[in-house]
Amino acid sequence: MSKLIFELSVSLDGYISGADSSPERLHGWAFRGDDTDRAMLDKAWPDGGAMICGRNTYDLSVPQWGAEGPSANKRIPLVVITHSEPAEVPANAVYSFATGGIEAALKEARDRAEGGNLVIMGGPGVGRQYLRAGLLDEVVLHVVPVFLGAGTRLFDDPGGAIGMETIEVIRTDAATHLRLRVAGG
Amino acid sequence: MSKLIFELSVSLDGYISGADSSPERLHGWAFRGDDTDRAMLDKAWPDGGAMICGRNTYDLSVPQWGAEGPSANKRIPLVVITHSEPAEVPANAVYSFATGGIEAALKEARDRAEGGNLVIMGGPGVGRQYLRAGLLDEVVLHVVPVFLGAGTRLFDDPGGAIGMETIEVIRTDAATHLRLRVAGG
Repeated sequence: MSKLIFELSVSLDGYISGADSSPERLHGWAFRGDDTDRAMLDKAWPDGGAMICGRNTYDLSVPQWGAEGPSANKRIPLVVITHSEPAEVPANAVYSFATGGIEAALKEARDRAEGGNLVIMGGPGVGRQYLRAGLLDEVVLHVVPVFLGAGTRLFDDPGGAIGMETIEVIRTDAATHLRLRVAGG
Repeated sequence: MSKLIFELSVSLDGYISGADSSPERLHGWAFRGDDTDRAMLDKAWPDGGAMICGRNTYDLSVPQWGAEGPSANKRIPLVVITHSEPAEVPANAVYSFATGGIEAALKEARDRAEGGNLVIMGGPGVGRQYLRAGLLDEVVLHVVPVFLGAGTRLFDDPGGAIGMETIEVIRTDAATHLRLRVAGG
């Protein structure tokens, strides 16, 4: 059974972007990391799988992604959660648009995947919704050794504590990569 | 040269206590952890060193600590940062009271230590002040595998980002223990 994985970079103090919202500081491991970091990044593109993101992430990124999506020439299908389909979409693109909420998007992603894992990308909003709904299997946190002190929080809601189980810890100079299973999930 | 170390437990999403402020969830590794967790805890009591805390931590804890302080029969000196000395102090106690701010407390702790490390304990306020003042050498974070979603944040101030260098990562079931050096510090 394919797993639904929420993957993102976070500071030591739980911020997913700084006050100045410069993404480089938290995502440097992906661009300037070592071989271990690059192996982590490769795992984030699920062979035979699919990806899910929110509409904001899509709108911000589609100018760079073009028709191929975030995985470039791997052309992994990307399901975008949205209220309505965009007016224009690149021809022959990897995207599909789910207008029926997170469960419909999950079903669409499973349909489009070939048995591989499903990875949630982009900001934390979509991942939080799947976690709160009990649909998430794993969270991968790339913990970057910096205190940001301010910015956008990984979690900032009153939904109650969610226990996790640590299943892998990989340390590099650029980040400590934690793979966690939702406890009981 | 002895090091000044700020040591505390934190959730995956950067909270140092939950909304219901039940401390057990974040400190369980210290009480119900394995041998590796207990070795981490032993290192937190600095042989030949001293400890520093704020007045709130002292007031809350002195009824349990008695004259011996948090390290019990190890009797490690504890310097309390305070505006004024308390009216009553247990006889023959390990405490001293620094009324001249964090630098005076640091000097007092170095004077009372026998060359060992100095460890900041208690809530995050005191540790943050030393970090912002550039006086801190290391931070030890006991990252507990739980999303709390709300509570008291490790960092929540506009003081700007502080880069750290990861010097040790130890994983147990109960926590991932990160030892970090203040970059350039």
